[in-house]
Amino acid sequence: MPWERRYIMLLALDFGGTKHTAAVWVPGEAGWRAHRRAFSPPGADAGYDIGTMLALAREALSGARPAAVGVSFGGPVDFDRGVVRLSHHVSGWEDVPLQQLLETEFGAPAAVDNDANAAALGEHRFGAGRGLDSLLYVTVSTGVGGGWILAGRPWRGAGGLAGEIGHTVVDPAGPLCLCGKRGCVERLASGPYMAQDWLAGQEEEGEMSWPGQLRGQGAATGGRGEREVTGAMVAEWAAGGDALAQKILERGAWALGVGIGNAVNLVNPQRVILGGGVTKAGEAWWAAVRHAARETALPEVAVEIAPAALGDDAPLWGAAALAREAGNQ
Amino acid sequence: MPWERRYIMLLALDFGGTKHTAAVWVPGEAGWRAHRRAFSPPGADAGYDIGTMLALAREALSGARPAAVGVSFGGPVDFDRGVVRLSHHVSGWEDVPLQQLLETEFGAPAAVDNDANAAALGEHRFGAGRGLDSLLYVTVSTGVGGGWILAGRPWRGAGGLAGEIGHTVVDPAGPLCLCGKRGCVERLASGPYMAQDWLAGQEEEGEMSWPGQLRGQGAATGGRGEREVTGAMVAEWAAGGDALAQKILERGAWALGVGIGNAVNLVNPQRVILGGGVTKAGEAWWAAVRHAARETALPEVAVEIAPAALGDDAPLWGAAALAREAGNQ
Repeated sequence: MPWERRYIMLLALDFGGTKHTAAVWVPGEAGWRAHRRAFSPPGADAGYDIGTMLALAREALSGARPAAVGVSFGGPVDFDRGVVRLSHHVSGWEDVPLQQLLETEFGAPAAVDNDANAAALGEHRFGAGRGLDSLLYVTVSTGVGGGWILAGRPWRGAGGLAGEIGHTVVDPAGPLCLCGKRGCVERLASGPYMAQDWLAGQEEEGEMSWPGQLRGQGAATGGRGEREVTGAMVAEWAAGGDALAQKILERGAWALGVGIGNAVNLVNPQRVILGGGVTKAGEAWWAAVRHAARETALPEVAVEIAPAALGDDAPLWGAAALAREAGNQ
Repeated sequence: MPWERRYIMLLALDFGGTKHTAAVWVPGEAGWRAHRRAFSPPGADAGYDIGTMLALAREALSGARPAAVGVSFGGPVDFDRGVVRLSHHVSGWEDVPLQQLLETEFGAPAAVDNDANAAALGEHRFGAGRGLDSLLYVTVSTGVGGGWILAGRPWRGAGGLAGEIGHTVVDPAGPLCLCGKRGCVERLASGPYMAQDWLAGQEEEGEMSWPGQLRGQGAATGGRGEREVTGAMVAEWAAGGDALAQKILERGAWALGVGIGNAVNLVNPQRVILGGGVTKAGEAWWAAVRHAARETALPEVAVEIAPAALGDDAPLWGAAALAREAGNQ
């Protein structure tokens, strides 16, 4: 009988709101053995998403049995019990015992964490935080979330809720956040809120034209309605010279920088890693974040802010790391 | 020969600015075997303080040799190297290798930490944080400092500078702090700054009389000069109905509460323990701190705020715990 080499295969899953990814990883390798992605239609619920993900996973595994399963979930998770608390975007996720469900499905140990913690772990094991003893990962996207690595291990907090830098207050006189407070980092620095503030600012100025390249496309663009403005557009218009967009983007960068400065004063991590769509806003945004963080931190506290290395794949790589730990691989 | 019981004796030292304490502790006992305290005169430098402390220690030990030495120091310390960085109050402490000095002096292992970290450790091992996996200790006194216990162990940060809640910003439009920023927790919540703000408020109102019990003592009190006002007096006058004192004390409690709320959102510890002179300001102050912290934390994040159990002895008990760990007792 010929000698047969057996690979240990780990299954990494990323429930990303409307985008779901399943990937197969062999520990030690730099890429995925298999990688499948699908989008959920509007109105899809937890049952639909789980069904979609299991189909993607079976396809990626093509009959192989994973040694362990790791999951990044886009919402609050009780890591110790392996239970999803809820999703802010998709109905039906209240108290879903996802770890148990996957362990039964695949006959292998599983671990489930929220996406910010998973991304922090991914960057620590495979990305911009390799070899560090401590880091804070912050994603600046449709929301602002964070995850810690302290003493080389994920720090999830007493209730699994650590990392909520998005809802730290940096300006008590600032605009109202959905959470009920004023001047949260997320209220000032996240994409949708920046878009909302740009629209409100336009109305105040009595203008409803579009800046930058889009100006002049007139009715066609305007006809798409206000809801179409995104954080990315605000960043683009700021780069193109739109004063209001510049002001909003700068204020967001300032708020994030103060939040980071406060966080490094409190916890003093070796590095802060920034990911998420808003970090693509350009050099002026990065400079403003770094400036505000440096000004807020005490002079003797080191402030090192670096871009994420794994981009949108950070949570999936974190899921792979969770699988490796769940399976002791 | 009669059987002779040998006790393991640990030496705990607290360099507290102008107040120095040496104590001898036998692990497992609830009190000190010996306890000696001395005050330094104004103008005393590091050499004077070290000499005083060694004399106190020898007296407390009465000829015995300690198995290990633990030290709480009132200023920034490089814990890993056992070196005092500096003192903000006493000259000559720049880069003093205190651990090595004590190891040579007593022929035993030593460990040196700053007072906030030591107090956090003391409360965790012997006080209001016993048995917890995580806590934040905050001292609110002439300054505002903090120390973490995470995963049952002190978390000192990458540069040994974690816990600086006093210099997190909670109101960027607030008054200027010595650190150069506006609206730091320490600028609003510490005793001396509250006293300073009360005096400034009095001047604005064109009054220079003293409120509460002191009103009417007139010249005698006024003659002591503005510098005599303390945070404790502001708290006392607030309790007595002085509107300005109440406003300043409430603002300080609000600032501390927001800082704590931000900290629990970021790190999600099991408990926050408050010590220091300002925590004696009364129930209204505690209620305002708790209210602001609860409002600032996300609804799902637990906020438990408790008074320190060890009072001014927290750093000394922390030093005893440091000695126990340094000596593996």
